[in-house]
Amino acid sequence: MSEKTKVNAAILIIGNEILSGRTQDTNTSTLALWLNSIGVKVQEVRVIPDVEETIVNSVNLLRKQYDYVFTTGGIGPTHDDITAESISKAFNLKYEMHKEGYKLLEKYYKPGEFNEGRQKMIWMPENAKLILNPTSGAPGFNVENVFCLPGVPSILKSMLGGLKHLITGGKPILSYTINLRTVESEIANSLTKVQDNNKDVEIGSYPFFQAGKLGVSIVIRSEEQSKIDICNSQILDFIKEKKIELVNRD
Amino acid sequence: MSEKTKVNAAILIIGNEILSGRTQDTNTSTLALWLNSIGVKVQEVRVIPDVEETIVNSVNLLRKQYDYVFTTGGIGPTHDDITAESISKAFNLKYEMHKEGYKLLEKYYKPGEFNEGRQKMIWMPENAKLILNPTSGAPGFNVENVFCLPGVPSILKSMLGGLKHLITGGKPILSYTINLRTVESEIANSLTKVQDNNKDVEIGSYPFFQAGKLGVSIVIRSEEQSKIDICNSQILDFIKEKKIELVNRD
Repeated sequence: MSEKTKVNAAILIIGNEILSGRTQDTNTSTLALWLNSIGVKVQEVRVIPDVEETIVNSVNLLRKQYDYVFTTGGIGPTHDDITAESISKAFNLKYEMHKEGYKLLEKYYKPGEFNEGRQKMIWMPENAKLILNPTSGAPGFNVENVFCLPGVPSILKSMLGGLKHLITGGKPILSYTINLRTVESEIANSLTKVQDNNKDVEIGSYPFFQAGKLGVSIVIRSEEQSKIDICNSQILDFIKEKKIELVNRD
Repeated sequence: MSEKTKVNAAILIIGNEILSGRTQDTNTSTLALWLNSIGVKVQEVRVIPDVEETIVNSVNLLRKQYDYVFTTGGIGPTHDDITAESISKAFNLKYEMHKEGYKLLEKYYKPGEFNEGRQKMIWMPENAKLILNPTSGAPGFNVENVFCLPGVPSILKSMLGGLKHLITGGKPILSYTINLRTVESEIANSLTKVQDNNKDVEIGSYPFFQAGKLGVSIVIRSEEQSKIDICNSQILDFIKEKKIELVNRD
């Protein structure tokens, strides 16, 4: 994949707690920002319940459609943690105790603490690669282009370092934000022209409310800094012409 | 739909800013909690980019699969706001100026302020029903079982009141949480038994870290209070037996 400049991914959030609204997902944002930085663009996110058939079907669809699939959630020790078994079924692989994982957790826990519940966490698809977990021991795992991570945000974050060498990204996706003191309708036509002149750059417009004031963030995204610079200069031209206040840029 | 007790929905989050990780989605949680309270269970969430074909295909798939579909994002005045036009295509309806919407915004804005950019916000699929927006004027809209809402969380929240009479839910989904001072592996087997004894109740187990201490939240969900009570009592039995500290319940 080394010559590929565009590499994409899907994120599959597995968990009833997100669908019920009880838990606010933050893993999408964490993963997407990190993936951007290593040149992988997230093209789709799905949130699905802890239902085996749904996990199997979603994984099998997404892994064919995207270069990488990252799942979060469902790899703990309880009855509702069915990701590892479901991934085994999706790939038609045996669901078995991972020997390396067993040794790892045997060392991690104090003698007698590595009980049946904890042992469930190293049951995985056969020959899965481990993704090390420096926070709480129990590893994630990788089969082909599918990477299975935990749902707890702090643990997921701590595992990204160990995941990096397993991913081959393209060019990092660069992003530049221009914050303006205006409303979207004032700049809509001018911004459409800039987008039309720069079709391969992604330009987004997002209203914000900050300290009681309205504003608009214009976000320019591309793999090429030079293309971002061209858009930036065209946007600066029209905001000068329209006498719109520039709040800041980054 | 009045005799149906189980009513489901999908949420379709439209927006590159969520996929890039720049913006943290909070609308899923807002909508899911609100929908639970009126007896609608969210079964799937998808986050997709501002790409017409993807919006059209996703809406056409989800609206056949679920009782309701709620979209967020892409109904503003800028070039990247393509939800209304895409929904028109999905339903094979004319994309046109909404007369009632026009009158609404004409009154909302000061004379001369209702410019071309703002007028774009009342271009919709023909005969769409308006969803009123008490915060910022520009309405959302409804076609058949698809409801299109804005992406800005505070505006979306303000529109739920006006949306309620358009939705017929089933029985509200009740939820009960038991917070324990333990780790998941200590209760995994006992909790599996409770789930096996109560197959039509949804029992989830979620580790938490609070004030430097580990804990587990057990969440019981059902439309029947009596079924929740049975699970609750079975869980209280095993935590008493295991001498696990009960932090609180709600």
